[in-house]
Amino acid sequence: MTKPEVSALNSWVPVPKDSDFTIYNLPFGVFKNKRLSPRAGIAIGDKIVDLAVLHDEGFFADLSQLPHDIFLGGSLNDFISLGKPVTKRVREIVQELLKEDNEALREHQIRGKAMVNRKEAQMLMPVKVGDYTDFYSSIEHATNVGTMFRDPDNALLPNWKHIPVGYHGRASSIIPSGVPIHRPKGQYKDPNMELPEFGPSRRLDFELELAFITGRTTKMGDSISTAEAEDFIFGFVLFNDWSARDIQAWEYVPLGPFLGKNFASSISPWIVTLEALDTFRVAGPKQDTEVLPYLKCEKDHAFDINLEVSIQPENQKATKVCTSNFKNMYWNITQQLAHHTVNGCNINVGDMYASGTISGPTPDSYGSMLELAWKGTKPLKLEDGSERKFIEDGDTVIMKGYCQKDHIRVGFGEVSTKVMPAK
Amino acid sequence: MTKPEVSALNSWVPVPKDSDFTIYNLPFGVFKNKRLSPRAGIAIGDKIVDLAVLHDEGFFADLSQLPHDIFLGGSLNDFISLGKPVTKRVREIVQELLKEDNEALREHQIRGKAMVNRKEAQMLMPVKVGDYTDFYSSIEHATNVGTMFRDPDNALLPNWKHIPVGYHGRASSIIPSGVPIHRPKGQYKDPNMELPEFGPSRRLDFELELAFITGRTTKMGDSISTAEAEDFIFGFVLFNDWSARDIQAWEYVPLGPFLGKNFASSISPWIVTLEALDTFRVAGPKQDTEVLPYLKCEKDHAFDINLEVSIQPENQKATKVCTSNFKNMYWNITQQLAHHTVNGCNINVGDMYASGTISGPTPDSYGSMLELAWKGTKPLKLEDGSERKFIEDGDTVIMKGYCQKDHIRVGFGEVSTKVMPAK
Repeated sequence: MTKPEVSALNSWVPVPKDSDFTIYNLPFGVFKNKRLSPRAGIAIGDKIVDLAVLHDEGFFADLSQLPHDIFLGGSLNDFISLGKPVTKRVREIVQELLKEDNEALREHQIRGKAMVNRKEAQMLMPVKVGDYTDFYSSIEHATNVGTMFRDPDNALLPNWKHIPVGYHGRASSIIPSGVPIHRPKGQYKDPNMELPEFGPSRRLDFELELAFITGRTTKMGDSISTAEAEDFIFGFVLFNDWSARDIQAWEYVPLGPFLGKNFASSISPWIVTLEALDTFRVAGPKQDTEVLPYLKCEKDHAFDINLEVSIQPENQKATKVCTSNFKNMYWNITQQLAHHTVNGCNINVGDMYASGTISGPTPDSYGSMLELAWKGTKPLKLEDGSERKFIEDGDTVIMKGYCQKDHIRVGFGEVSTKVMPAK
Repeated sequence: MTKPEVSALNSWVPVPKDSDFTIYNLPFGVFKNKRLSPRAGIAIGDKIVDLAVLHDEGFFADLSQLPHDIFLGGSLNDFISLGKPVTKRVREIVQELLKEDNEALREHQIRGKAMVNRKEAQMLMPVKVGDYTDFYSSIEHATNVGTMFRDPDNALLPNWKHIPVGYHGRASSIIPSGVPIHRPKGQYKDPNMELPEFGPSRRLDFELELAFITGRTTKMGDSISTAEAEDFIFGFVLFNDWSARDIQAWEYVPLGPFLGKNFASSISPWIVTLEALDTFRVAGPKQDTEVLPYLKCEKDHAFDINLEVSIQPENQKATKVCTSNFKNMYWNITQQLAHHTVNGCNINVGDMYASGTISGPTPDSYGSMLELAWKGTKPLKLEDGSERKFIEDGDTVIMKGYCQKDHIRVGFGEVSTKVMPAK
């Protein structure tokens, strides 16, 4: 490890080694507990800073435009709508207050009230999602799927390197980590079946993704350039785009995925801001096909985020089944947002844009069971001795993500979802 | 015309002959004018009944659960959420008040305040749309598109008669009648092009659809049966699913339409209730392929709704280019909603579900320019002497819909949208 170039920031809040929630991170979320109604907080170590309490006490007094109840609405949308100058400043103020030598909060009588135990809090959806879009931006994933379902020699469709392919998904069924899902039922028709059949999906899968959340609104007819795009992005969450492969395979022509996807998508509840991720900015993969001018971008817009997926069978230990990285994505977030709005499609605060499955180049870096077990032909062995081609009832799927550079760690926590039997 | 079987209802409000907004209809909408902030109303003739005024005056006093400000929220979502027993009763009370021999409102001092001129009102979005789904339920449309783009001998894909194919669309860009749109820009690659190009769409099209709006919420994991489905449906609007055919053709594999659709969808602003449409219930087309049990339904769930589309070039008269009927739809609304939720996908109040293009069996009943001008090979002649393969800048597209049975007429008014040049 090279010597840190900046001096380390430390907090008076104990931050366990390998905690995702360091003083460099300070992600925003919405929580409640037995005592407190839903409210906005910032995570640090095993604590949550109750922003409503700080606001009541006047810690944000220099932000005169901050409404009295801004942290109490049950979602961050109104807060995010105030714009980056405000949201960045709130995070900076909290960072300053948490520094080990800052006594303002540390020695304040409301410290006990302002610092909530994360373990006793229930995390809720951080934003109200207006519209949700899912991209398909990993070349490895698109190639793997094309190879399995179409033709290995023409795995990528002709449009893939010209447009960040995407489609609209279901906003209503996006849920935070910890909320169990039921195995979906539906129609499927395997190649060997003469007629479609109905029942619980036999091929329930996860998809390892990240999603960004927009923090600004556009009007219909307006577009966002790649140069402007990051100003419109508030932050990121981990995103498990649950998929029922058998339902999807039968339904998806010609209009795309529908019931194979819309039964649930699970997210990590802490929004890691773009500012916190800035340290981990890297160049993305070289795009070997020239893109149209509106998709060109300068600067680096990829992020070095380590990702992993584990499967935990009921009453057993978890087994890590995938190790990937967000920096592998062929299309970056500025290209995605520029493409999404180039036709004048309007966006809103709280809209969510998932990356598509984040598969890496090696078989252990594939971001779905479909690819990891290669359409069921290479079952994965779990530590309890069982095998998995897809996800079984009682399994909990756990996705984690973090960045590490020298002494600086910024992470997402996890999105963990248990699969219950079909209703 | 056969003799009416029920005695005619007349109102003390003058209702012009051929008005869509008869005393049998009484659709709900949200309006404002120079004097009034956004509020809920019911249309009758050339007037709008200001429901907030009636409520203030105690006309809904027997509905004790009706909050004081229920008609002032700027959308109907909260009102609709109260459930059909309440929304039906409000409509019945208004119907009773509007009967020609009822003096309660007619002779009341607040009559002038309660009856707003429609001409002076601006209609707004009637609901806040959480999620929007577009189906593909006309066999004629699916066959036409399959014939043009794939193979006339296998125009319908294998899944089409087994599932009401649908996909998720963009909720943010649904706009009410009267709001102009800009021609979208985007990528296209015609077969004769070596590389994709970028510019204003050269093939801007309308799609004639109806959309239903749900009035109840389900929990994730729950399903709605075909028998229950109508209880979840509040009413219908006309729906113009704007489409850029060149953008769509290049982007839609493998994940479906995206930028070719999400730049705008236009709706008629008055929600015609399921109760108002009950008189026009008919049997739908016979489904010649047996469906799975969850898609079977008893009773008639199609509706005899006459539909038409006109194109009005700038400063010219409108030319009717399509005459269709909603009763042609192969898949009905109960099958659509049962399918949508069979996997446990949760729905919300205000969600919108468009039918897919409503094409009839004859060439003049096709519900899109793509079909009417058969991919540009049979341009339509307009009354001003110009020709159309697709929609041109300055054109206004006007969709109308109405039901007529004996003396009873129930209509939707119109959705009218002018196309401005690309920004």
